[in-house]
Amino acid sequence: MTDKKLLGVDLGGTTAKFAILTQDGEIQQRWSIDTNILDEGAHIIPDIIASIQDHLKLYNMTAADFQGIGMGTPGTVDTKAGTVIGAYNLNWKTLQHPKRDIEAATGIPFAIDNDVNVAAMGEQWKGAGDASDNVTLVALGTGIGAGVISDGHLLHGVAGSAGEIGHVTVDPNGYMCTCGKKGCLETVASATGVVRVARDMAEEYAGDSQLKQILDDGDDISSKIVFDCAKEGDKLALMIVDRVSYFLGLGLGNLGNMLNPEYILIGGGVSAAGDFLLSRVDKYFKQFTFPNVRETTKLRLATLGNTAGVIGAASLARH
Amino acid sequence: MTDKKLLGVDLGGTTAKFAILTQDGEIQQRWSIDTNILDEGAHIIPDIIASIQDHLKLYNMTAADFQGIGMGTPGTVDTKAGTVIGAYNLNWKTLQHPKRDIEAATGIPFAIDNDVNVAAMGEQWKGAGDASDNVTLVALGTGIGAGVISDGHLLHGVAGSAGEIGHVTVDPNGYMCTCGKKGCLETVASATGVVRVARDMAEEYAGDSQLKQILDDGDDISSKIVFDCAKEGDKLALMIVDRVSYFLGLGLGNLGNMLNPEYILIGGGVSAAGDFLLSRVDKYFKQFTFPNVRETTKLRLATLGNTAGVIGAASLARH
Repeated sequence: MTDKKLLGVDLGGTTAKFAILTQDGEIQQRWSIDTNILDEGAHIIPDIIASIQDHLKLYNMTAADFQGIGMGTPGTVDTKAGTVIGAYNLNWKTLQHPKRDIEAATGIPFAIDNDVNVAAMGEQWKGAGDASDNVTLVALGTGIGAGVISDGHLLHGVAGSAGEIGHVTVDPNGYMCTCGKKGCLETVASATGVVRVARDMAEEYAGDSQLKQILDDGDDISSKIVFDCAKEGDKLALMIVDRVSYFLGLGLGNLGNMLNPEYILIGGGVSAAGDFLLSRVDKYFKQFTFPNVRETTKLRLATLGNTAGVIGAASLARH
Repeated sequence: MTDKKLLGVDLGGTTAKFAILTQDGEIQQRWSIDTNILDEGAHIIPDIIASIQDHLKLYNMTAADFQGIGMGTPGTVDTKAGTVIGAYNLNWKTLQHPKRDIEAATGIPFAIDNDVNVAAMGEQWKGAGDASDNVTLVALGTGIGAGVISDGHLLHGVAGSAGEIGHVTVDPNGYMCTCGKKGCLETVASATGVVRVARDMAEEYAGDSQLKQILDDGDDISSKIVFDCAKEGDKLALMIVDRVSYFLGLGLGNLGNMLNPEYILIGGGVSAAGDFLLSRVDKYFKQFTFPNVRETTKLRLATLGNTAGVIGAASLARH
């Protein structure tokens, strides 16, 4: 095994995070810069290049010290061409060429994939995935996405949409989704989905509830407030968490039945609810999986938080 | 590319089919033998070995003429160990060692996988899969199974249950499945599932229907009779086909959302209903897939019929 270093870049709408890692995945240096999305995101790649060059100089390192650079990004990625399009939180509306530009400027081989795929690689390598060949990371944030590693391979599908569990239909007559169809998992189990379920159930709820009181007062709520109320025993909040858990158990159960991963890892902002959420989802997951999957596919919380991105990005550079 | 031949074996509960293929997938010889399931299936592997040896002699061929033997089998397969367990229609209740036994007897390298995975490889290579890297074959027979090839790799999952779309939950409050959970796709869209749906809907149906007449007369029906009646315009049969198509569209749509294959191929006995079924399933498939999958994942009928098995089995020997 080479002792060359790996450079991981986790590009997001507000910051780009960087890390230099050993081949074993040990982080040696970390830094970050703000993402400048002005001028249709035209500064983003030049800023990343300048920051890499500055830090290599600072650490007395050269291109020859690196096996490669890996990057995770929002948007639709062509992993072979090394291009990105449609990353709206970066203002990237036209085709971008990070691989071409970063390789030309640094002289270091470059690989790229989308952010949730890269986070899945990070959790598989150094997080809750225990280096298993069969790991799916489901990120419950504003939306829901998944990165699927099956039989040791990160899946993309024919047009990069493998892992779109956020748009799996869990309720054929359910809420309208931003994607244009009804009853997507995202409409009921993302951070915004939990709030939507909460508002609807609160309207029909007649009993005593602190959560209902907050809503009746016209105050804004978040998925965190719903889970906090539920943990304190609020009956309405418990009913909401049960409904969200039911749909997550159905969606993840069907993912289990189709892919039989060793671990389905739950990450993203909503997963801050921790074991309280996990145990409730697991009850329904077991109800919706057939025996061999029930016995061999386990639900777990992701453990790396927002370092999963740089670690997974760096792991792309190993291949 | 070597010009050595490939030998494919498709082992089933009534016959074992054999074929000798070129590296291009052209079938040069084909034969079959009856499967003798007596004595807990103890004769099956010896019979296969004897048949291979007889035919090699007949064709003046030796082990050196072959790159390998590939086999598809029912049951739970350990592809690395080359073992099979729990193939109940073969009476194989204990662990079988086809790889060990067949390699020892023939001196030819041997690879094995389960029957639906092997059929998927066959359809991908020489059938409706057009050699795409992203092909799923869904076999609608007595039960429902699928073989999934994603980004060029046949998926197994941690315990061999990848592709168990027959046990995806499409109706949480639906029929009890033989697997012990409720509302599996298999309970409503396999050959037996179609008959179950037909019987239930006939009970509630009040109008004119030839199909209802057949059932009221106490005659047995099959999924073929249901589709034949529907094609002739029988209103009850059309309602049954619509319900079955709805559940297939939901299950296959969710497979599409998770895996984004280029082609989902529909095979097995029920697929004999052809475009009549396919067009109805496709309507619901489009309803239950999100835009990028709707545009890039296509439903097709499988084309190889029961030669998919030997062709796909032979393809295992190429790797």
